[in-house]
Amino acid sequence: MQKTYSDDSLALHTDLYQINMSESYWADGMHERKAVFELFFRKLPFGNGYAIFAGLERVLDYLRDFRFTESDLAYLQEEVGYKEDYIEYLRTVRFTGNVYSVLEGELVFQNEPLIRIEAPLVEAQLIETALLNIVNYQTLIATKASRIKQIVKEQRVMEFGTRRAQEMDAAVWGTRAAFIGGLEATSNVRAGKRFGIPVAGTHAHSMVQAYKDEYEAFHSYAKRHKDCVFLVDTYDTLKSGVPTAIRVAKELGDKINFQGIRLDSGDIAFLSKEARKMLDEAGFPDVQIVVSNDLDEYTILNLKAQGARVDSWGIGTKLITAYDQPALGAVYKIVAIENEHGEMEDTIKISGNAEKVTTPGQKNVYRIIDRENGKSEGDYIAMQDENPADEDHLKMFHPVHTYVSKFVSNFDAVNIHHHVVENGEIIYENPSVQEMQEFAAKNLELLWDEYKRSLNPEEYPVDLSQKCWDNKMRNIQEVKDAIQQLTGK
Amino acid sequence: MQKTYSDDSLALHTDLYQINMSESYWADGMHERKAVFELFFRKLPFGNGYAIFAGLERVLDYLRDFRFTESDLAYLQEEVGYKEDYIEYLRTVRFTGNVYSVLEGELVFQNEPLIRIEAPLVEAQLIETALLNIVNYQTLIATKASRIKQIVKEQRVMEFGTRRAQEMDAAVWGTRAAFIGGLEATSNVRAGKRFGIPVAGTHAHSMVQAYKDEYEAFHSYAKRHKDCVFLVDTYDTLKSGVPTAIRVAKELGDKINFQGIRLDSGDIAFLSKEARKMLDEAGFPDVQIVVSNDLDEYTILNLKAQGARVDSWGIGTKLITAYDQPALGAVYKIVAIENEHGEMEDTIKISGNAEKVTTPGQKNVYRIIDRENGKSEGDYIAMQDENPADEDHLKMFHPVHTYVSKFVSNFDAVNIHHHVVENGEIIYENPSVQEMQEFAAKNLELLWDEYKRSLNPEEYPVDLSQKCWDNKMRNIQEVKDAIQQLTGK
Repeated sequence: MQKTYSDDSLALHTDLYQINMSESYWADGMHERKAVFELFFRKLPFGNGYAIFAGLERVLDYLRDFRFTESDLAYLQEEVGYKEDYIEYLRTVRFTGNVYSVLEGELVFQNEPLIRIEAPLVEAQLIETALLNIVNYQTLIATKASRIKQIVKEQRVMEFGTRRAQEMDAAVWGTRAAFIGGLEATSNVRAGKRFGIPVAGTHAHSMVQAYKDEYEAFHSYAKRHKDCVFLVDTYDTLKSGVPTAIRVAKELGDKINFQGIRLDSGDIAFLSKEARKMLDEAGFPDVQIVVSNDLDEYTILNLKAQGARVDSWGIGTKLITAYDQPALGAVYKIVAIENEHGEMEDTIKISGNAEKVTTPGQKNVYRIIDRENGKSEGDYIAMQDENPADEDHLKMFHPVHTYVSKFVSNFDAVNIHHHVVENGEIIYENPSVQEMQEFAAKNLELLWDEYKRSLNPEEYPVDLSQKCWDNKMRNIQEVKDAIQQLTGK
Repeated sequence: MQKTYSDDSLALHTDLYQINMSESYWADGMHERKAVFELFFRKLPFGNGYAIFAGLERVLDYLRDFRFTESDLAYLQEEVGYKEDYIEYLRTVRFTGNVYSVLEGELVFQNEPLIRIEAPLVEAQLIETALLNIVNYQTLIATKASRIKQIVKEQRVMEFGTRRAQEMDAAVWGTRAAFIGGLEATSNVRAGKRFGIPVAGTHAHSMVQAYKDEYEAFHSYAKRHKDCVFLVDTYDTLKSGVPTAIRVAKELGDKINFQGIRLDSGDIAFLSKEARKMLDEAGFPDVQIVVSNDLDEYTILNLKAQGARVDSWGIGTKLITAYDQPALGAVYKIVAIENEHGEMEDTIKISGNAEKVTTPGQKNVYRIIDRENGKSEGDYIAMQDENPADEDHLKMFHPVHTYVSKFVSNFDAVNIHHHVVENGEIIYENPSVQEMQEFAAKNLELLWDEYKRSLNPEEYPVDLSQKCWDNKMRNIQEVKDAIQQLTGK
């Protein structure tokens, strides 16, 4: 008994408190004050040494279309109880700010802004929830896919997870993110249509069961499909499935392109080796073995170590849900706001946990590339009025353990943020997902192998400039002073 | 650079292999043969003793609207390469079958059909992926929410997870499922509008930071909002946040309804006890303490054991992603199909793993209720031509460990499936989510406490009738005989 609306929008795809706070900003005449928010995560997922950013295209769509529709406003007024004057104001709200973002396929690390929003306070506030919802998931999945791709290397990997995805958007946007991270194809046809991702798949157990036996089912499949990958584990892989696939392929000869067999259960290491022997002996050395059975990078690593003869991998549940860590935990924090005199002032959030103290002020993130070897030495977060390219020697120190530091020279400092929305107008054209995938692969070449290990990688440096650090310390001290005044202690 | 389509549909929200198989069925003239598929899971999630079914409303929407649109067909023909004749056929496909389903909020268990589809083979096949995608996630979340509700009992629990959900559909449908499972409210406004779920939320840290200090921020919030819950951990909970909330509340007196304070970080057990003392001493014994900080049923259980003084819980990441087990793993298996003579024949899928062997044939699931105590003794899966209500004594035995058995008498046998779609027409009206929530709560009363423990519950019996068991054994033997004939061994 859900209600459906012809003018449904995503403006209400937010937490109620955003609309509550915005009411106060508006009532206090603060809604137009320029605010700067940063979206970042504190910890890389899966213990990985890097993450791959994804979600920008969806973020831009959302910002472009942002508006409360009549049914949204009616709901807010009649059901939630906001007053008429505020509703009238909400009717006028659009996103008119500036967005600086890293691009999809860019490598990103802990505690650096992935997206910086500079916008009137209300606008920047209202969009928080949706931006996090989008970026958290897509970045998580692109990263998981990249981990898998690092293990399978040049072999083919396909995304097969729709049935286990956390609802429909996850299936579609997740498979897109997985493609950016390095996968070759998807089983989700809608994602293929929408994003131009190659689609893949042959047949399931139910088809074998629907026919009299495997022999009849494979024959029938081959009648309409020249490229054949036969699923061989419906009844008994080695006694029935593989021999029947070989028999049908021999009978049909050139009429089909016998591409492969698929194993979906049992001991993949053992079965793939036995099946390989049977195929080779039958004169099909080029026929591939495709496997799919609750796989992830750990299982694949183990199967490879055991000498499994696999050519192509179908990955379902473990990738599309990021099973071992199903949330990224990115946050969105205000770092500066215009005061009543029109000047920008830094803001900070204090926490008993040092990692959770925000870094105040308007900042840029530079990737420091060594000119000699072309490798990335670390990321460098500097205040907006600093330009590390001006420096001969850059002092980089760890943002928590400040005694850890190093000097870098002969480097390029590349600002990884791009201006993608200017005064509410999108000034960036999304590339194809193929280009995003290539971009990610190229970015990985910048990274030393020590950061790319799937287990216990080295920690990639993300360091604050001296000025940025000093500014943070000053802000912390100011809050401490204010609390002392309050408590008299 | 995604492509957008005015006639986008969910018919392509499926795995490519479904469309491939359907082509063979159609080419062989088998597409109209009646097939019976069952959707079920093999293992209860989270080690829980029961699951709560959710997702039917979305399934019915999907089935009602199922059709390939012109842009779907153009994509399939031009990009995927299906031939014109098959495309012409696909243009005509609608869902015309019958659906028998348990209702949302029903308790469900391992290895029993949640949904039974009886439809022309092609139709039943094409819808598999979307049905699993919907039911897997929503049932998972309803179950997780129910676990949490079992721990918090009469206290209030709110769903706050949108920012960490796996994309937008998960946020919206997940919060709906959480509500069915027993939660009281959501922060997601769009879900509130669409499903009539109460929305909740006050303000965030960013609001405190946007103002000069907490005092000004709380005052400002109170100006437009009579009901006030102040977030007190932006700078220092006990030194600044709580005292400031109390000060503002005293200053404003009756002008506001000082409902509560919210703690979002730090040691909740300690902070809540200290804050409770401060509030009580200040004359606010009824002001509630709301907490939200990466909570789930395990943390809540621990906090309660430590005497935390919490009145209301906001649950984010751990619920909306089902963090400790982010996929349910339900499957959809063919159990019977019409043969060329128009008779129904059983089908089976064999596996080396006994749990993965399917149970063939058209079956019903009965909940066996003891007439004396009104409690559920177990579920009983019987062939369609059996009626357990006719029996005086029912022999129930474990479907894997068959030596475990018991006799039940003086029982009601309630068929838990409802006929919800008849020849393609939806004949079931979805109740409100409130009614679904009440239905779930009522169902839980049927269950002995031993099945409701969150840790190590007893295994609820889901047993096969003797006839069902014998039929399964016969089917297994037939496959074994066929393989023996094939291999000569």
